[in-house]
Amino acid sequence: MSSETKQLKVSEGAPVELDQKAQPAMETNKDAGSEELNPDGTPLSDKQRRKRAEKAEKERIKAEKAARLAAEQAARQAADVDFATENYGVLPMNCSQERKNEQLFAIEDIHPEKDGQPITLLARLQTSRLPSAKLAFLTFRNGVHCVQATLAVTPEKISRQMVKWAAAVTPESIVRVEGTISKVPKPVESPSVTVKDAEIKISRMFVAVPVTWEGQIPFYVDDATRSDAEIEASQNTPRPLPPIALDTRLDNRVLDLRTPTNQAIFRLNHGVCRLFREFLENNGFIEIHTPKLQGAATESGASVFKVDYFKGKAFLAQSPQLGKQMAISADFGRVYEIGPVFRAEDSNTNRHMTEFTGLDLEMAFQEHYHEVVDLLNQLFMYIFSELPKRYATEIATVRRQYPSEEFLVPEAPVCLNFKEGIQMLRDAGYEVNDLDDLSTETERALGKLVRDKYKTDFYALDKFPMEVRPFYTMPDPEDSRYSNSYDFFMRGQEILSGAQRIHDAKFLEERLAAANIPVSSMKHYVDAFRLGAPPHAGGGIGLERVLMLYLGLNNIRRVSMFPRDPKRVEP
Amino acid sequence: MSSETKQLKVSEGAPVELDQKAQPAMETNKDAGSEELNPDGTPLSDKQRRKRAEKAEKERIKAEKAARLAAEQAARQAADVDFATENYGVLPMNCSQERKNEQLFAIEDIHPEKDGQPITLLARLQTSRLPSAKLAFLTFRNGVHCVQATLAVTPEKISRQMVKWAAAVTPESIVRVEGTISKVPKPVESPSVTVKDAEIKISRMFVAVPVTWEGQIPFYVDDATRSDAEIEASQNTPRPLPPIALDTRLDNRVLDLRTPTNQAIFRLNHGVCRLFREFLENNGFIEIHTPKLQGAATESGASVFKVDYFKGKAFLAQSPQLGKQMAISADFGRVYEIGPVFRAEDSNTNRHMTEFTGLDLEMAFQEHYHEVVDLLNQLFMYIFSELPKRYATEIATVRRQYPSEEFLVPEAPVCLNFKEGIQMLRDAGYEVNDLDDLSTETERALGKLVRDKYKTDFYALDKFPMEVRPFYTMPDPEDSRYSNSYDFFMRGQEILSGAQRIHDAKFLEERLAAANIPVSSMKHYVDAFRLGAPPHAGGGIGLERVLMLYLGLNNIRRVSMFPRDPKRVEP
Repeated sequence: MSSETKQLKVSEGAPVELDQKAQPAMETNKDAGSEELNPDGTPLSDKQRRKRAEKAEKERIKAEKAARLAAEQAARQAADVDFATENYGVLPMNCSQERKNEQLFAIEDIHPEKDGQPITLLARLQTSRLPSAKLAFLTFRNGVHCVQATLAVTPEKISRQMVKWAAAVTPESIVRVEGTISKVPKPVESPSVTVKDAEIKISRMFVAVPVTWEGQIPFYVDDATRSDAEIEASQNTPRPLPPIALDTRLDNRVLDLRTPTNQAIFRLNHGVCRLFREFLENNGFIEIHTPKLQGAATESGASVFKVDYFKGKAFLAQSPQLGKQMAISADFGRVYEIGPVFRAEDSNTNRHMTEFTGLDLEMAFQEHYHEVVDLLNQLFMYIFSELPKRYATEIATVRRQYPSEEFLVPEAPVCLNFKEGIQMLRDAGYEVNDLDDLSTETERALGKLVRDKYKTDFYALDKFPMEVRPFYTMPDPEDSRYSNSYDFFMRGQEILSGAQRIHDAKFLEERLAAANIPVSSMKHYVDAFRLGAPPHAGGGIGLERVLMLYLGLNNIRRVSMFPRDPKRVEP
Repeated sequence: MSSETKQLKVSEGAPVELDQKAQPAMETNKDAGSEELNPDGTPLSDKQRRKRAEKAEKERIKAEKAARLAAEQAARQAADVDFATENYGVLPMNCSQERKNEQLFAIEDIHPEKDGQPITLLARLQTSRLPSAKLAFLTFRNGVHCVQATLAVTPEKISRQMVKWAAAVTPESIVRVEGTISKVPKPVESPSVTVKDAEIKISRMFVAVPVTWEGQIPFYVDDATRSDAEIEASQNTPRPLPPIALDTRLDNRVLDLRTPTNQAIFRLNHGVCRLFREFLENNGFIEIHTPKLQGAATESGASVFKVDYFKGKAFLAQSPQLGKQMAISADFGRVYEIGPVFRAEDSNTNRHMTEFTGLDLEMAFQEHYHEVVDLLNQLFMYIFSELPKRYATEIATVRRQYPSEEFLVPEAPVCLNFKEGIQMLRDAGYEVNDLDDLSTETERALGKLVRDKYKTDFYALDKFPMEVRPFYTMPDPEDSRYSNSYDFFMRGQEILSGAQRIHDAKFLEERLAAANIPVSSMKHYVDAFRLGAPPHAGGGIGLERVLMLYLGLNNIRRVSMFPRDPKRVEP
């Protein structure tokens, strides 16, 4: 190991050159008492002798003192000779020089029962404190796991230089630590430390990957993990915690993503996708990939992004709607897609992004689109029942920083008719029209009413007015002012929009004409129905909305790894 | 049911109006033999009487004959009264009028042991023949399953009109069929019929979704399923099969996708994704979603698509490279993404598309990038061992239309050094330079050499020359003319490109400068490394390439549901 290391000269901790040599401890005074005569040759008087003796005695005392001081200084300087240079430093850049298959230890495996066990680990240095010149307190982090460590001067292995150096390593550097597990007498108090009943006694420490950020890093991961309540409570203490604005976080998203909260959020993000897929694959769906580059800008009123496509133009798909319906006409029966969805709407709200992840599905049904509504309800019930089972730790981690009320899931799915919803709003004093869409405000109000009445944060609303839905929506056979369409809500916000689609080409052409969309601009789409498509329905779910609302977060950007909005296309 | 149906008046099969009433069967001849006198009052001679009697007899015979003919005609016309109108027709458009939870039968469940069992099914009409006015042969298809059916005139239930009507329904219409399962004496010969030992005896048939294509549909699914060999062999027969060009297929992709071959291909497409995910999730990877909209056009020489982004510009990500590396710096450790990848290259070849599905992964390693190479090898070995186990039917279905040699998988993964590859090519007489990239031609040649030597269609090539790799590639620590980078090949074509990436910010900046890329244009990317990123490596796999080469297909468009190339952005 030592041959691979080079010393990191942290400025404050640079070894001191031993440029002041210790003086010899004792020297005879050549001038004192060599001859007991006056300068003129006369012998000294008794008084003179006494004075001289007194002087000599003073000088001797002084010299002794000087010698003692010099000896002490020498001893101190001897102690400053860094005997620990092999035990710390910076490792060369890893460019796969060798493969030793060394067994490293994981922070989550540190346990008081392993007291005394020697371990080696690679982790990020999260925080460091140097309460005295002989002792440093460090914390190391790996994902959501964090452990405390001490580095104390010892006569042979750990020098003061090493301690000073370790405490000066920039937080977020990746370090290689060797030490032993040590049981602690009482649980560690720091909220960021997850290993509560043991710590590491460090014997060696090397920087494997240094942080080379110019100046101080934008914020500390530990600080970025604190809840609003913690920040507020700290304001009148000696160490007030800095609040970190969302924009600062997003500008430095890589750093922000290292918080245990974000580590948990993106494991949950994966969890929702995984459960979505699992349920659908167990129900006969296959995954498809429809093109995001489209020849025509159509489908609905939502604005689309224009792309330079060689000598012409193309458009970014605002949903896999056309592709997944064509897949149904192509007899795939039940299809789903997880992929990016693009919306060129200049909406600068806490729940809109220009690019998000769509969980889309489409399904041929046998008799009635409620077959699909039922399946969607089962899908969500599956997600809501499995998430807390499989991701309890992650949910708890997020709630520690962002407390929220438990997400209420009903015993059996609640599906209301749009008319019922309107009536509930009216009964509660809202002025709403029969055939208007719900506003964000009335959506939320209805969410609250449904929560009070049915004890659920999740419900579906069926039979929306025809006017407020896209041209390809199938009207209600009993009342053509309404349609076979539905939205699903979580905490009073829409997370899924879907419908039975018109599968009859002639009827679809009528609808296109009524919506002033030239049939020619959607030739391939209409052709898919001219070739006969089974009755079908489906829906599009916003992944980030589901996660945001499940966790009760206040901004959709918090659940998108690198969010995009009208003002942000980086990082 | 009858109240819901309306009769389809197929022109040829329109019920004939009974406008010719049958004549009365017998009439007495008023003039014949009323009085036996001559016009002058004289009585008839014997001869005259005999003649008259003969004439009367003739007329009687004639009348009898006419009456018989008239009776026969009346009987025939009586038979033409359509007594089967309740048993066929067109159903009204399904707009979810009612939900009966009717149990339908699946074609794949038809079995000779169920001989005589009544069944109802919904299926596409694939083909129809009318060998006589009293008998129609039909085939019905559901995905990859196809069954033969007969519809024969019976005295009470099935009329000639019904038979004629059924045979005239446009192929690809979705029909509701009622009938009974009937064992067949010898296996059905038609290659498109998958139920070989039973058929359906139809009792009722309704069109649930008509085809409304103007004129003849572009091609028949049955024809589109034939192999080149079948088409060639048919050319000198009375029924030569039409070859169907790839462009015709892609222009009418919905129809083309209905072939059993394509039904199988896209199940396999899903299968590859599923196995990719399964392996990675079992190995601690999490799925991420990185943005396709990027603020800067960078990363590598490949051209990128430009997007109008509100008042500015954005670019479509040509891979998740930046995002997934940032996720590694953000401590996610092992990440993967399945998503669209955009390439604005004007390459019009059989293996390039402007949009394809990337199977991307990135992984922090402990000591050596070969940890990642090993994992990639295990990943592919998993896919190649599971695919034929889980999708044997689908693979066989594809090979029926597109025969190919079995894909050779080695016992243990084969990973060659680039220098070894160059030497093998030289030994085989190819002129290749040490530090040049392989051409498509030499890639294929090397693939053949490796196949001969190692009996494998899959191998990896490690340590490519530094010059031919992107700026972020880590050089080989022992020879900086080479790099810690690798390609994986199937049947001599590249399917994965990957490397250890430079994780040291200062070194990365040097490399950017050397590549003439302004560091400022990649600020956020470089920042991710200034904050300390663990050593990592990864790769990007082209989903469609893997599938195309596994199946030995000749064009990548065949494995993309709606392929995009410089000349095609529709359907």
